[in-house]
Amino acid sequence: MTNLLSRMARCAGVGLAVLLGTMLLTTGAARAAVSGEVAYIFNTFSFLVHGFLVMWMAAGFAMLESGLVRTKNTAAICLKNIALYSLAGIMYYVIGYNLMYVDVAGWIGSFSFLYNPSADELALIAAADKATPEMVKKVVDASGYSVMSDWFFQMVFVATAASIVSGTLAERIKVWPFLIFVVVLCGVIYPIQGSWVWGAGWLDNMGFSDFAGSTLVHSAGGWAALAGAIILGPRKGKYGPQGQINPMPGANLPLATLGTFILWFGWFGFNGGSQLALGSALDATAMSIVYVNTNLAAAAGVIAAMALTQILYKKIDLTMTLNGAIAGLVSITAGPDLSNPLLALVVGGVGGVLVVIAVPLLDKLKIDDVVGAISAHLVAGIWGTLCVGIFGSGSVVTQLIGIAAIGAFVFVVSFIVWTILKVTVGIRADDEAEELGLDRAELGMEAYPEFGSGSQTL
Amino acid sequence: MTNLLSRMARCAGVGLAVLLGTMLLTTGAARAAVSGEVAYIFNTFSFLVHGFLVMWMAAGFAMLESGLVRTKNTAAICLKNIALYSLAGIMYYVIGYNLMYVDVAGWIGSFSFLYNPSADELALIAAADKATPEMVKKVVDASGYSVMSDWFFQMVFVATAASIVSGTLAERIKVWPFLIFVVVLCGVIYPIQGSWVWGAGWLDNMGFSDFAGSTLVHSAGGWAALAGAIILGPRKGKYGPQGQINPMPGANLPLATLGTFILWFGWFGFNGGSQLALGSALDATAMSIVYVNTNLAAAAGVIAAMALTQILYKKIDLTMTLNGAIAGLVSITAGPDLSNPLLALVVGGVGGVLVVIAVPLLDKLKIDDVVGAISAHLVAGIWGTLCVGIFGSGSVVTQLIGIAAIGAFVFVVSFIVWTILKVTVGIRADDEAEELGLDRAELGMEAYPEFGSGSQTL
Amino acid sequence: MTNLLSRMARCAGVGLAVLLGTMLLTTGAARAAVSGEVAYIFNTFSFLVHGFLVMWMAAGFAMLESGLVRTKNTAAICLKNIALYSLAGIMYYVIGYNLMYVDVAGWIGSFSFLYNPSADELALIAAADKATPEMVKKVVDASGYSVMSDWFFQMVFVATAASIVSGTLAERIKVWPFLIFVVVLCGVIYPIQGSWVWGAGWLDNMGFSDFAGSTLVHSAGGWAALAGAIILGPRKGKYGPQGQINPMPGANLPLATLGTFILWFGWFGFNGGSQLALGSALDATAMSIVYVNTNLAAAAGVIAAMALTQILYKKIDLTMTLNGAIAGLVSITAGPDLSNPLLALVVGGVGGVLVVIAVPLLDKLKIDDVVGAISAHLVAGIWGTLCVGIFGSGSVVTQLIGIAAIGAFVFVVSFIVWTILKVTVGIRADDEAEELGLDRAELGMEAYPEFGSGSQTL
Repeated sequence: MTNLLSRMARCAGVGLAVLLGTMLLTTGAARAAVSGEVAYIFNTFSFLVHGFLVMWMAAGFAMLESGLVRTKNTAAICLKNIALYSLAGIMYYVIGYNLMYVDVAGWIGSFSFLYNPSADELALIAAADKATPEMVKKVVDASGYSVMSDWFFQMVFVATAASIVSGTLAERIKVWPFLIFVVVLCGVIYPIQGSWVWGAGWLDNMGFSDFAGSTLVHSAGGWAALAGAIILGPRKGKYGPQGQINPMPGANLPLATLGTFILWFGWFGFNGGSQLALGSALDATAMSIVYVNTNLAAAAGVIAAMALTQILYKKIDLTMTLNGAIAGLVSITAGPDLSNPLLALVVGGVGGVLVVIAVPLLDKLKIDDVVGAISAHLVAGIWGTLCVGIFGSGSVVTQLIGIAAIGAFVFVVSFIVWTILKVTVGIRADDEAEELGLDRAELGMEAYPEFGSGSQTL
Repeated sequence: MTNLLSRMARCAGVGLAVLLGTMLLTTGAARAAVSGEVAYIFNTFSFLVHGFLVMWMAAGFAMLESGLVRTKNTAAICLKNIALYSLAGIMYYVIGYNLMYVDVAGWIGSFSFLYNPSADELALIAAADKATPEMVKKVVDASGYSVMSDWFFQMVFVATAASIVSGTLAERIKVWPFLIFVVVLCGVIYPIQGSWVWGAGWLDNMGFSDFAGSTLVHSAGGWAALAGAIILGPRKGKYGPQGQINPMPGANLPLATLGTFILWFGWFGFNGGSQLALGSALDATAMSIVYVNTNLAAAAGVIAAMALTQILYKKIDLTMTLNGAIAGLVSITAGPDLSNPLLALVVGGVGGVLVVIAVPLLDKLKIDDVVGAISAHLVAGIWGTLCVGIFGSGSVVTQLIGIAAIGAFVFVVSFIVWTILKVTVGIRADDEAEELGLDRAELGMEAYPEFGSGSQTL
Repeated sequence: MTNLLSRMARCAGVGLAVLLGTMLLTTGAARAAVSGEVAYIFNTFSFLVHGFLVMWMAAGFAMLESGLVRTKNTAAICLKNIALYSLAGIMYYVIGYNLMYVDVAGWIGSFSFLYNPSADELALIAAADKATPEMVKKVVDASGYSVMSDWFFQMVFVATAASIVSGTLAERIKVWPFLIFVVVLCGVIYPIQGSWVWGAGWLDNMGFSDFAGSTLVHSAGGWAALAGAIILGPRKGKYGPQGQINPMPGANLPLATLGTFILWFGWFGFNGGSQLALGSALDATAMSIVYVNTNLAAAAGVIAAMALTQILYKKIDLTMTLNGAIAGLVSITAGPDLSNPLLALVVGGVGGVLVVIAVPLLDKLKIDDVVGAISAHLVAGIWGTLCVGIFGSGSVVTQLIGIAAIGAFVFVVSFIVWTILKVTVGIRADDEAEELGLDRAELGMEAYPEFGSGSQTL
């Protein structure tokens, strides 16, 4: 119940949850000691600080993917990453947020355009030093935080889901069709399934719990990527005729390492900010536990993936270790509020193991996931969501229902969108362009024009 | 009036504005609900958090410029960037802050050395647990924030202006003369023009408005760069005898992408922190809107630049897209407090278009701007400053006066300083050094000694 | 209670001050104006924000070291860095924190496993909106901040000490034995010496003062690295038979520059967060001064190192300049609370000079420190610790005793551990592996498979 209530605060902009959320913030005895306005500032600043951390994850994905593709597709993946982050923000402003959080009726929110500051907020700002205590109270009581700070925090989550897709489909998808998919994903697909839980929709009512988005963000992104990978097909030469799998090693592993560190860093915003409040000792304490669990799960993912690759392959695989960190982070994301940090080590460690198992498995299925995003985000996301039932206060059955419902929805709709894109504008670079590299074919430039085979591939 | 007052809070450390600023913070009804000491902590922490974000932009410029120069000048540009950030801080401590904010008489502040914590602050700290409520009140009432937190926040802005110059003049300017210019820029030129607005000088009195520095930081840096580019001349071989423009592509585009993401990330500090206060619901709400507008303007700049290069050149230009993000950010910087975020898309989108137009135009004028900084910072900065008159509460005429006055002052003084440097110590690397690369000529090292033509250029 | 007292030790700086520290937070007049719960939130959020900044330093070390090793050892150093950060967190959770802070008896804390949220904190969170003011008060009064936020902040410091070791021993140490050392360092060595000061042990009682760890973190890491470097021996070919020193230049200087900027950025967390509280105007003011001094010391280190290499070698050495920044930061770390920022320039500038002197000196002693970490962290750490006696309120003699005691303890125990590792599992890659590079030998991969001699070294 507590969990449900606090989770509902996620969507406290509107709907029934407003009332519950407001009660939580203003009438809970624990939170009454801090004045409404001070709590409002803390809550708002938490959204801003944690929001900028999550925004920074966009750079993490860009670096991770830049490091794991070959040189000839590096500029294209940089371009895709900055463009998808841009489109995610625009679409979430234009339509997405309203679909996800405003007037959610069970399974979908409002089809209204633009999400703007409230009239009370604008009136307060316009009044400036002439503002009255009543005006302040109106704003403070409305939701306990500035509505645009909440928008900012939620927006960066959408971008994360889109980033996952770009990694899987790298080195062969055309730029513009990819970006059209991003528009649909961020404007429609993500917000609709998001409304089911964080918008206080049907899955939330059922008790499904996903603290910061193992399912809603990471698995959702993973399902969209999986649908795309199936329709797009593998890179030329990735899978040989006799079933051999040809490695296509990433061109710049320090960049991939940097990307992973950025993601880890940003994840304190992702999970910590998803406490959604900082205006009470209770929230500050809970947020601290979230930080600690997030860090321990990632650490366990690293060590588990490292050790397992050493055992399986007699060498430590750096790329797999980096994905182990991400899998650990994704795994803890559904329930980083575990009161026993030791469990975070278990949750994250299993995540790290799963990624080492899943990557070759996908290759056997000839699903070509360039950076391992499906393994690290979809597979670990399912595991993490189940953990809320296993170790937390959730029900395993309910968690499974949520995983299945969101998985089915995102996969099927994405599959349809990818199919439409394929038969209309086409999604795959032609053979010559793939051979030449997307950088030269689509951007007319090289990422590293002076470095060794960078030029030799001309 | 509100605008004037709130802008004056920027310099509320001293001068007449102290009184106005203090009234704003302590007598405004809206802000009275939060106790003075709590507001003081929020205001101070906002300066520190947003200040470290802006400090991080120094790394963004370093990476952007490292990625956009050729390998043979990469170590030199790294060196210039870390050195200029260092000198900016030292000069702003030794002389700059006082010139800009202390006892500003219309068009210049105080020629006194060093800027230190106030006596009341030092007394409070020395008293530690013996501090009396009176001592606390004295400190809290003085300006509403710790004076050194304000210094820290203002200091990182100076460094930004200097960073702009290093990008334009890369690949041909000698290290030490460049750093001498940085000393003058950060110690004298920037603070004097800054005093006109943020120091409550004559332009501020006239109603000129520049929230976070489209003109005061970005155009100012751009004018200094333009003067330098004219005197220094283009890189050898950049412009052919028949008027052809020879591309000299950047050596490491993922680094340039990383740099752009760092700048975007840091810009939340740049614009968000320029709210200059966080101690009331009003400030927290306004700051949230600033964050959102900043993000949307950058996103629009990206998409506009991308789309336009696709249309003009049939290819998407990654470098131009990155500059589109920066132009979007610069454009919104003068007025990120727009109450309608939709306008931020317009402001930033036009910024992105402008950079795509300005870059080839400068090349036609044979002004060699290695990273496109004049287009992204000066041109977009002018546009953004005008937007305050067009979309905001400012007057277009007053904005034009400010743009012209600051432009004339910074350009002329910079031109004189560059000229003096040219005829005394010399500013341009000799032909042999330019051919060899500044890394080997001035630093005796290579940035990438093992990579392809990195060694082949020996 | 014990926990409360021991945590207070770091806050108050001296043993008897533990009691004063408690008074300071709960009864001190200066801090009483901010309600206990609001102060609790500020203190906790300060630990989280500054903690994530310090966590980010792990990425800084990874990039610095990636940039300063040769290509053939780049993936291995990336792996070591992410693994050591992971192990640091796990070991500090499992055993380290308790050894350092819980029930410290003069020279060692408690040998108990795991460090978890307090029972009162868990009860508060479980109660959620049914929490009573009494429950809140219990949590707030216990230590003035969430215990897990403190754990998070302290944990990232351990990782920093371990990062120093990896840089010195790069390019020749085997991965797993290195990680075993990290386990011992983070789980046992670091916490024991840490308990002597920050755990309110014997050195703290004596009046030894180390604000953020010039000695406890940086020198400690440096001593462990020095012991390792002596036992491990230099890289093959580093020192010629006639005493010549062969340069082995770093492969990617922009990455090294990025790493330095990350460290500088993160250091605001390192030093700023070590104020250990933000819940009063006094703390916010003191923290601001810490930020300013930290920045000025680093800036002075840069300029001093730059100028000195220009004078000594007629060229500016970028690598040395980067180490100058780090040395400046390390130097100010023991006493960043200097009330006169001008002194910070002196402290940091001398640090920058020391690193330029120490690096060639170590080479003469045939101690092979790949990234210059012993010079930047150990040497500058000693200097910085002495500065507290010279410029601050400490005693030079007491500072010397602390430097010597911690140096002897860390060096001797590390020497023993390295020796045991050497004679059991072996610590050094065999000649063939060193020649081939650790990337191919231990990881079976290349960091830059497509770049120039990246492949030529096969």
